[in-house]
Amino acid sequence: MSDHRETIALSEAQPPLFVGIDVGGTNIKIGLVDDHGRTLGYLSIPTAAETGAEDASRRMGEAARQVIAAAGVNLRDVGRAGLGTPGTMDIPNGMLLEPTNIKNWRNFPIRDRVGFYLGLPVTFSNDAKAAAYGEYWIGSGRAMHSMVLITLGTGIGGGIIIGDLMVMGQHSHGSEVGHAIIDYRDDARECSCGQRGHLEAYAGANAVVKRTQEKLAAGRTSTLTARLAAGEKLTPLSIATEAAGGDALSDEIVMETARFLGIGIVSLMHTIDPTGVVLGGAMTFGGAGSELGRRFLERVREEVRRRAFEIPAAKTTIEFAQLGGDAGYIGAAGLARAEHRRG
Amino acid sequence: MSDHRETIALSEAQPPLFVGIDVGGTNIKIGLVDDHGRTLGYLSIPTAAETGAEDASRRMGEAARQVIAAAGVNLRDVGRAGLGTPGTMDIPNGMLLEPTNIKNWRNFPIRDRVGFYLGLPVTFSNDAKAAAYGEYWIGSGRAMHSMVLITLGTGIGGGIIIGDLMVMGQHSHGSEVGHAIIDYRDDARECSCGQRGHLEAYAGANAVVKRTQEKLAAGRTSTLTARLAAGEKLTPLSIATEAAGGDALSDEIVMETARFLGIGIVSLMHTIDPTGVVLGGAMTFGGAGSELGRRFLERVREEVRRRAFEIPAAKTTIEFAQLGGDAGYIGAAGLARAEHRRG
Repeated sequence: MSDHRETIALSEAQPPLFVGIDVGGTNIKIGLVDDHGRTLGYLSIPTAAETGAEDASRRMGEAARQVIAAAGVNLRDVGRAGLGTPGTMDIPNGMLLEPTNIKNWRNFPIRDRVGFYLGLPVTFSNDAKAAAYGEYWIGSGRAMHSMVLITLGTGIGGGIIIGDLMVMGQHSHGSEVGHAIIDYRDDARECSCGQRGHLEAYAGANAVVKRTQEKLAAGRTSTLTARLAAGEKLTPLSIATEAAGGDALSDEIVMETARFLGIGIVSLMHTIDPTGVVLGGAMTFGGAGSELGRRFLERVREEVRRRAFEIPAAKTTIEFAQLGGDAGYIGAAGLARAEHRRG
Repeated sequence: MSDHRETIALSEAQPPLFVGIDVGGTNIKIGLVDDHGRTLGYLSIPTAAETGAEDASRRMGEAARQVIAAAGVNLRDVGRAGLGTPGTMDIPNGMLLEPTNIKNWRNFPIRDRVGFYLGLPVTFSNDAKAAAYGEYWIGSGRAMHSMVLITLGTGIGGGIIIGDLMVMGQHSHGSEVGHAIIDYRDDARECSCGQRGHLEAYAGANAVVKRTQEKLAAGRTSTLTARLAAGEKLTPLSIATEAAGGDALSDEIVMETARFLGIGIVSLMHTIDPTGVVLGGAMTFGGAGSELGRRFLERVREEVRRRAFEIPAAKTTIEFAQLGGDAGYIGAAGLARAEHRRG
């Protein structure tokens, strides 16, 4: 159980309740959430992608029913379920098209299959958008009118919310902020998607490792060399650990990452102009709880102040996310709640 | 009167009607528009910025009353007025902060002063957003759910509309698509706003002239040289004329401009993912009515197809605007209508 999860007793919760399901490459998180975003029950099951999408849909439905039963709740008190998955999708048709890291789940009608096994209508979304909605509902964005969440990890995902509107996009490709172009030149860095110059190609986890390797290959000294000599692979975590330990090269890499993020954020401020920007995901270099994380965030803010228009530069808040790995299922439940309320 | 304006007789129009006012650096356009966006009356007055913002507000109010009277309409049949101005603003407070090209109108409560002289409540917006709303309402975007207008001129402005939502931004800086960063590097081109690497610094009118001057200075031959020798100044119009006449350098400049625009559009597709993108403003190189304009648009589309994700690349429409210089007042009236309908 995460520290961020506020778990309450059934006696405090009033229907309608909502199920949130967050599909990851390794685990699927399933929570039962009340109308205020509080968690009544939670279960994590292995994704076990190799068993196929139909089997996973069945297991999600069964696990969600278990969570509901274990909380002592009647299925009729659950209004709707929300489902967030990685990858490209066709949201209006509930289709998972090409899920990242789950190669054999392509072109699968996941929304309706999970709904079938669970016995509830399902609201479908991408995982980063669901996480964004979670932060907007009860996390760092709860006092914001409009918010952009940027999730930092192997990929850079995002969710843009303006008032009641989650920017899904006409073709289910909205809020893909990691694929905004920050360098149009032909020699710009290559992104995981095959295109060049995207924010993710500079500030995603693979880019962090690659930039480090380049500096080491150029002869820079670093305590990372000892790790490599011991057979370790470079990761953002090992770089963060060495940066926190005083390694100048590692620190430089982390601060450069912050700078690239600040650049991407400025473009979002000049198009969306949100109340605030929230940074989440696995790669926040320790986040608010570490000195390195706090310096990372301050470096992001510095780049934004340097580059953005005066008024938004002074007024736009930039904060870490608060819900950690729970944002996805909470936000999926929140999106289900929003659709339930629209009727 | 523009060809784009559909002017109707009073007998066809049903209240509520709306006034739209579009403030430009040279002229102020004022139209009386019905519930379907059709124009019942129109007047253009000089901006005469030097007389001050209070005097201009008075003249706007009087001219709008003239338009209403000349159309044979009762003021009580006009529901609301819409006002679009250039520059930075504080929309919730109706303040014009720093209008582009109208230096002595700073920090002026223009919404309420125009409302005072006109005797109607006023909806305030920036000029590019008003134009975007006009195109969305009855122009190129009328069948779109979400639309981005990019206005090409000395500056590059924009308007982002998603469903019923015009993206004004938390700090009245939304939809400033010309100031998205397409080149983060320290040696990126300088924008009119003083920052570097913005789309406008590559594809705005000043950038078009500057890129041409650079190529001429590098020794490229061009029929533009004769114009310069005759004492003419380089402008996007003279470059377009020479490009249409077969000058290779001028053509290259126009097509490079299209390429930069395509790059900016891809970032918008990966964040907003609109139904379509509409290109308007003064610098469309002849637009749909000229061979050069059509090749310009095709080059924009080509760059988008090359760089965007497969599905949005295939499905996002990119078109020229249809309302020409009328988009601003029609859209200002449309924004007034939208606020009137919200109550």
